[in-house]
Amino acid sequence: MSTSTLSDTVGQGRLLDTATVAGRATSFWNSSPMRAKAMVLPTSTDEVAGILAHCNSNRQSVITQGGLTNCVSAVEPNLDDIVLSTEKMTGIVEIDKVGGTVVVEAGVVLQNLQETVAKEGMSFPLDLGARGSCTIGGNIATNAGGINVLRYGMMRNLVLGLEVVLPDGTVMSSMNRMLKNNAGYDMKQLFIGSEGTLGIVTRAVLRLFPQPASRQDALVAVTSMENAIAFLGKLQRELAGNLSAFEIMWGNYYRAVTGDNGHRPPLSREYPFYIVFQAEGSDPTIDDARFERVLESALEDELITDAVLPKSDTETRAIWEIRENFEPALIEPPIYLYDVSLPIRDMAAYVEAVEKNVTARWSGGTCLTLGHMADGNLHFFVAPGEDGDHHVASDECVYEPLRPYGGSVSAEHGIGLEKLSWLPHSKSDVEIELMRSLKRSLDPHNILNPGRVVSL
Amino acid sequence: MSTSTLSDTVGQGRLLDTATVAGRATSFWNSSPMRAKAMVLPTSTDEVAGILAHCNSNRQSVITQGGLTNCVSAVEPNLDDIVLSTEKMTGIVEIDKVGGTVVVEAGVVLQNLQETVAKEGMSFPLDLGARGSCTIGGNIATNAGGINVLRYGMMRNLVLGLEVVLPDGTVMSSMNRMLKNNAGYDMKQLFIGSEGTLGIVTRAVLRLFPQPASRQDALVAVTSMENAIAFLGKLQRELAGNLSAFEIMWGNYYRAVTGDNGHRPPLSREYPFYIVFQAEGSDPTIDDARFERVLESALEDELITDAVLPKSDTETRAIWEIRENFEPALIEPPIYLYDVSLPIRDMAAYVEAVEKNVTARWSGGTCLTLGHMADGNLHFFVAPGEDGDHHVASDECVYEPLRPYGGSVSAEHGIGLEKLSWLPHSKSDVEIELMRSLKRSLDPHNILNPGRVVSL
Repeated sequence: MSTSTLSDTVGQGRLLDTATVAGRATSFWNSSPMRAKAMVLPTSTDEVAGILAHCNSNRQSVITQGGLTNCVSAVEPNLDDIVLSTEKMTGIVEIDKVGGTVVVEAGVVLQNLQETVAKEGMSFPLDLGARGSCTIGGNIATNAGGINVLRYGMMRNLVLGLEVVLPDGTVMSSMNRMLKNNAGYDMKQLFIGSEGTLGIVTRAVLRLFPQPASRQDALVAVTSMENAIAFLGKLQRELAGNLSAFEIMWGNYYRAVTGDNGHRPPLSREYPFYIVFQAEGSDPTIDDARFERVLESALEDELITDAVLPKSDTETRAIWEIRENFEPALIEPPIYLYDVSLPIRDMAAYVEAVEKNVTARWSGGTCLTLGHMADGNLHFFVAPGEDGDHHVASDECVYEPLRPYGGSVSAEHGIGLEKLSWLPHSKSDVEIELMRSLKRSLDPHNILNPGRVVSL
Repeated sequence: MSTSTLSDTVGQGRLLDTATVAGRATSFWNSSPMRAKAMVLPTSTDEVAGILAHCNSNRQSVITQGGLTNCVSAVEPNLDDIVLSTEKMTGIVEIDKVGGTVVVEAGVVLQNLQETVAKEGMSFPLDLGARGSCTIGGNIATNAGGINVLRYGMMRNLVLGLEVVLPDGTVMSSMNRMLKNNAGYDMKQLFIGSEGTLGIVTRAVLRLFPQPASRQDALVAVTSMENAIAFLGKLQRELAGNLSAFEIMWGNYYRAVTGDNGHRPPLSREYPFYIVFQAEGSDPTIDDARFERVLESALEDELITDAVLPKSDTETRAIWEIRENFEPALIEPPIYLYDVSLPIRDMAAYVEAVEKNVTARWSGGTCLTLGHMADGNLHFFVAPGEDGDHHVASDECVYEPLRPYGGSVSAEHGIGLEKLSWLPHSKSDVEIELMRSLKRSLDPHNILNPGRVVSL
């Protein structure tokens, strides 16, 4: 397809050629020049519809891009692809404080939405490390998770309505604003988490919550996974609905990111496990007192061995930096990042198996572990400590021991291109065949993010 | 199709003929004898698969039945249909207290599940009036709502994994046990809320929560919808995650169900609106005190005009009976039940329009209103006060004024046969066409609950 038809739709100024596109980095993780036939920057749903109608007629592949923070090579284009970026669709259209909803365009950056609704006394609770770059459209396309899933659910749970352009340019506007709507099949569910392969999200209605009046955070050390599990159970009972995050770090991760070249360690570095957790509530006095009482009683019962309660916003940020900013780890590349989920009760045995695999495979191999424990979600940084491409071997170290536990090769990052060969590890043949038939039915010419998530 | 092939699958004892089936009532709402070609009572997923393989080869329609409490004629069979009842599949297979999950078979009665997990200190939070009869399979098929959606979400939000038999007998086992799993399209979403038209749910993994240590309930009176909205906002801010139910009753509903032949009225009967609400927490002393303080401050601010705090379980049950047991209303049939949703800010104007329509259409017409206000969900009982079939006219009274607000003709009951003609009121042509293509693709011979939800 020539790209000249596209300039009729978006105008010359919002159609970038190959050379211009090459001035951009491929992604947040890959600084090499982006390679694409062209890039279009639509400003409206109608323009997206026009672009897809053209591309579908011409069997032209389209890669949709948001904030480029995707971790699984889902949106890296090549010279045959048209890139559709939502960067010009950044409207926060309407906030309804009574209904607890906000209408947004797909290109809104997550942090921008969080800050805009905060000014109205409301909270949009999805939160993840990439908040400053990732977009709502990308959050929907990948069913983003992050640190508050425990209390507020994944992105799927925060989307009430959706407007999607189908591959042939048809607009499905399903901008429901109610918590409950059982009028027919809930078609929006198809598109949430489909990684841009079934349609392009252009607008959404999202849930808002009142801003919590109080927040408590702490960093604690525990000596075993049994104690970590018992401590989580205690918090779930005694803080109940207030518990909003519960993040575990294995000792080797904590040691790697703290110390001389890293974060200042608020707790001694010798413990086997560290937990950062957070509660949100409605009454600072009551909530602070309860939070401290629960911590004290956990110390008395020896569920936790040491604890630090930050005394300022700066100290609070500092304990979260340990969890979120892993740059000080300074592991030698190559490094492979993982994102698995499995039942909490099986985590200890599973991580031990992965560590064993890594050190058996590479004498200088490292495996740093951390994650959203309460959600059953662990992240690994695997570093073989040897030059070369060890990706497949590393995958085997992590994914093979996952199978007996019925775990998932992706808790939140998705499949993209990177995990495609491992999908059968977590999905049955029947499920994959259903995925294929859905993709064929909605995108018969396979123009949207072809090859990602599902191979035809 | 002769039914003899079915007896090979389930055995003669679990294949009931037309005469035996006629010994049962058609549904909870319809006491006339059930009419069906036959009924099969499978005990396993394999048997369900065998039954569907037979029926699909023979183009035999299959109506799946759970607890028969459906409100929209979704599972009433006729003499051409085979009924598949899940009543013999009642296993509560495994409770994982650490992971907060339970594995169940589709025929488990909701209340039985609630009580079984309560013995383990856990809570399954879906709750609705039909709890003693409705089944988990039905709750999934209809994406059930009820009184705790505000805090815990609809049934969709409580389902982690699903086993479904597709129309051709293929078993899709997707028994995920993790809160987070983004490995490929989340195929289970297709079946939740599809009212038995795309597959038959045989097993599920559901979320559990720790049992709340404290619970507070109250009945209050308010003088306007503005005050009701402001009161809801106050509770959402000040009780935050603890608020678990917020149910409104218009004054005429309250008056109809209380008094000489009805429930004892805990509050005077002259107010325009009544609200029953509930909080759940982790510390009885703190939570009771906070609950009372919030109520006192709402009285001082004149958001609410009167309040009663039940002092015993009996008194608590009594205030909930007013909301849940509408039998004392003794309205003369015919009575038509509705289940709409719309943005909360538009409720007052909308209900006024419906009332006006009803009284303009029938001089003795009554419209009693109540509902899950915090979820945007209202129920109406419309009684024309005249003999005859006024269903269509009553539908017009309720649904026509809903359109300008972008409301839904079904918040939680579903579409079934009863609301099929009104579906275009809440779904666009594009959405309905997508529903059709999904149904055709998954059930090409249209054997599962044919004619319900989507007409081909």
